[in-house]
Amino acid sequence: MPASKPLRPKATLVVRNATLATCDRGASDAGLIPGGAVAVDERRIVWVGRDRELDGAVEREGARVIDARGGLVTPGLVDSHTHLVFAGERAGEFALRCSGRSYLDTAISGGGISVTTRATQAASDAALLESAVARARRLLAQGVTTVEVKSGYGLTVETELRLLRIIHELAHTLWREVTIVPTFLAHAIPPERQEDREAYVAELCDRLLPIIAKEKLAASCDVFLEEGAFTAEEARLLLEAAAARGLVPRLHADQLVASRGAELAAQTGCASADHLEFIDDDGVAALAGGGVVAGLLPLSTLSLGSERYAPARRLLAAGVPISLASNLNPGSAMSENVGLVLSIACLKLRLAPAEALVAYTAGGARSLRRGDLGRLAPGCEADLVLWGCSSVEHLAWHMATNHALAVVKRGRVVHEALPGAAVDCR
Amino acid sequence: MPASKPLRPKATLVVRNATLATCDRGASDAGLIPGGAVAVDERRIVWVGRDRELDGAVEREGARVIDARGGLVTPGLVDSHTHLVFAGERAGEFALRCSGRSYLDTAISGGGISVTTRATQAASDAALLESAVARARRLLAQGVTTVEVKSGYGLTVETELRLLRIIHELAHTLWREVTIVPTFLAHAIPPERQEDREAYVAELCDRLLPIIAKEKLAASCDVFLEEGAFTAEEARLLLEAAAARGLVPRLHADQLVASRGAELAAQTGCASADHLEFIDDDGVAALAGGGVVAGLLPLSTLSLGSERYAPARRLLAAGVPISLASNLNPGSAMSENVGLVLSIACLKLRLAPAEALVAYTAGGARSLRRGDLGRLAPGCEADLVLWGCSSVEHLAWHMATNHALAVVKRGRVVHEALPGAAVDCR
Repeated sequence: MPASKPLRPKATLVVRNATLATCDRGASDAGLIPGGAVAVDERRIVWVGRDRELDGAVEREGARVIDARGGLVTPGLVDSHTHLVFAGERAGEFALRCSGRSYLDTAISGGGISVTTRATQAASDAALLESAVARARRLLAQGVTTVEVKSGYGLTVETELRLLRIIHELAHTLWREVTIVPTFLAHAIPPERQEDREAYVAELCDRLLPIIAKEKLAASCDVFLEEGAFTAEEARLLLEAAAARGLVPRLHADQLVASRGAELAAQTGCASADHLEFIDDDGVAALAGGGVVAGLLPLSTLSLGSERYAPARRLLAAGVPISLASNLNPGSAMSENVGLVLSIACLKLRLAPAEALVAYTAGGARSLRRGDLGRLAPGCEADLVLWGCSSVEHLAWHMATNHALAVVKRGRVVHEALPGAAVDCR
Repeated sequence: MPASKPLRPKATLVVRNATLATCDRGASDAGLIPGGAVAVDERRIVWVGRDRELDGAVEREGARVIDARGGLVTPGLVDSHTHLVFAGERAGEFALRCSGRSYLDTAISGGGISVTTRATQAASDAALLESAVARARRLLAQGVTTVEVKSGYGLTVETELRLLRIIHELAHTLWREVTIVPTFLAHAIPPERQEDREAYVAELCDRLLPIIAKEKLAASCDVFLEEGAFTAEEARLLLEAAAARGLVPRLHADQLVASRGAELAAQTGCASADHLEFIDDDGVAALAGGGVVAGLLPLSTLSLGSERYAPARRLLAAGVPISLASNLNPGSAMSENVGLVLSIACLKLRLAPAEALVAYTAGGARSLRRGDLGRLAPGCEADLVLWGCSSVEHLAWHMATNHALAVVKRGRVVHEALPGAAVDCR
């Protein structure tokens, strides 16, 4: 009996004649397919392969066809660490820091997070939403199709709930364009609760987290473990309470001083431990053992005027999965420039451009426990970027410049290049 | 006898309700005028002052009025050091450098400038012009109204003349939008002339420079004094021959190794000595004594993966005038991101945001010996930028992001904000 011809999947959109970087072959391999094609059925990728095999593999009558003309096509970027809902500016603090003042000194002397907390509380819901939408769309215009967004500039139960509801509204506003992944961030102990820390932490655990879980206001709970923020014991209580409520735990760890944050992240089952500028070998081993994603945020190191970057090569050598993100926030990384993140990751974290791209796609998706994002593979969401260059290296080389020609979100083109975008190939 | 009322200048354009940064009060003072206004008659600035004094000072019937709504208004930026006419990419070299290879090693092993020289020679005039126009317009869209453009990827008499003619065509194409200041750059000794260096230098002096001067193909002559390029003695011959032909001499000095370039620049009457990462105290004193502008190019240091930035604070303390520029080129600074130049100048050169802005406006103009550019002052060309923020610090804080809402060149609006531009004020 002859083998019956397998049923070919149907496509609504195909991207042809592309240099594909599938980002699905591990941390150091962009998964390049020159002369590649991707087929999409509505919102899912159904086929990825060589262009010349497309017609035999896919039923594509009536499908929209995008000719990439040799250009690079990658998964939509996954920005797995941002604080993009806030009001106010911290430009004066930036200028002071350039003249030699440290970030911790600024925070301790009443600058820092509290400036943003006050400005955010004073702003209207509409103003907070509008500025967050503008920031998310600037990321989208550069190829970002998924953005994790943290609360954390409220601090009280009521003000954190307000921010999480604004993030919910942001997700609703942008649902066709960008996937918003909401995170509750326990960011700092408010000044008026410093004498009363234990009760404050209990309030977050016993009052706030149940509401967040019940109303599904966040997918994750993140804690800022740092001098001037939460202690390791407080962070553990918060992360365990969050996990018990079904929230994915994650941690800001070892950013400004060594705090054994990596070990705590591994012990509490965190999906990610982010920053890690001061992690040591024991911490690296703990992340590797726990399968915790190391979230690398090089714009913060740059913007804090430091040269102590996270030890990305040691993390990779130990087999720790890594992600790369903007850390967009008004204090330590005020930039939506995605290309700058990639270039600084290469220059300062010593990542190869392919490693940086994988970390900013599949790595970010892993950090968010969203295996359906960040890769070009059948079954994944059809989030794609067509770039105006033909290699991954080019994205990192032509620095801080927008190369995105077209961004596809769930099978629909949601952004096309602005006049002036860099088209260096073709 | 009563004093007769002074004749009020007539204006064709006024910008009102602005936070002016005039950049005409020395290196460390942005010359802020809150509640300021500028009046323009055709292509020149005729009045700068407080908005409330505008009507008494200027006859403005029929003038176009731009309401800045409190936003920052500065002179158009002067990018006084670029190599923006070239073909090809050097992305692979960037990636290799990130993995630890040095720039000099790359150049010596046959990468580096020669890669660009070959690609540039292989490209058509039309392709070179088109890519240069695109790069200049990306700068313009971020507030740059004057761009110095160097030749230097030809190396032979004929190929350098070809590039200078393309730069002339670039100036012609963009004359309404951007002032192009052309420079002949003696960039390197071609490999086939290494045994014959003396004759090669004589050829540049005796054959090429006279043609350049006669046909007015360049305003300046720049020499790359560096290991692997020209020696100090060769540079001196070239600079003296150029000055004798009426070209303004300038020098690439002390970039990768200490070469006593600053002293040579002062001795030969150079308008500027650029790079200076390895300048020492004697060099600083020489620049100060000679009134030579120190051209600071921090994106090169960043992009070369180095931490040895030019000693900007020592230069300022010694009274050396400074300029700031992109150094846009495919080898060591492939970026048109003007905001990144300002932010890295603050973070790494330790300039205050006001110092960075003055260096990127009036400082650049001084480096080009164009006192009519880079300042908001009566008599200057009416090149202005209206920004989407209200302070100079904000430009540096919100990194690598385009804040330009409108760019005025010689009294005409030649660029308006793209969708997605950052509007953080108002």
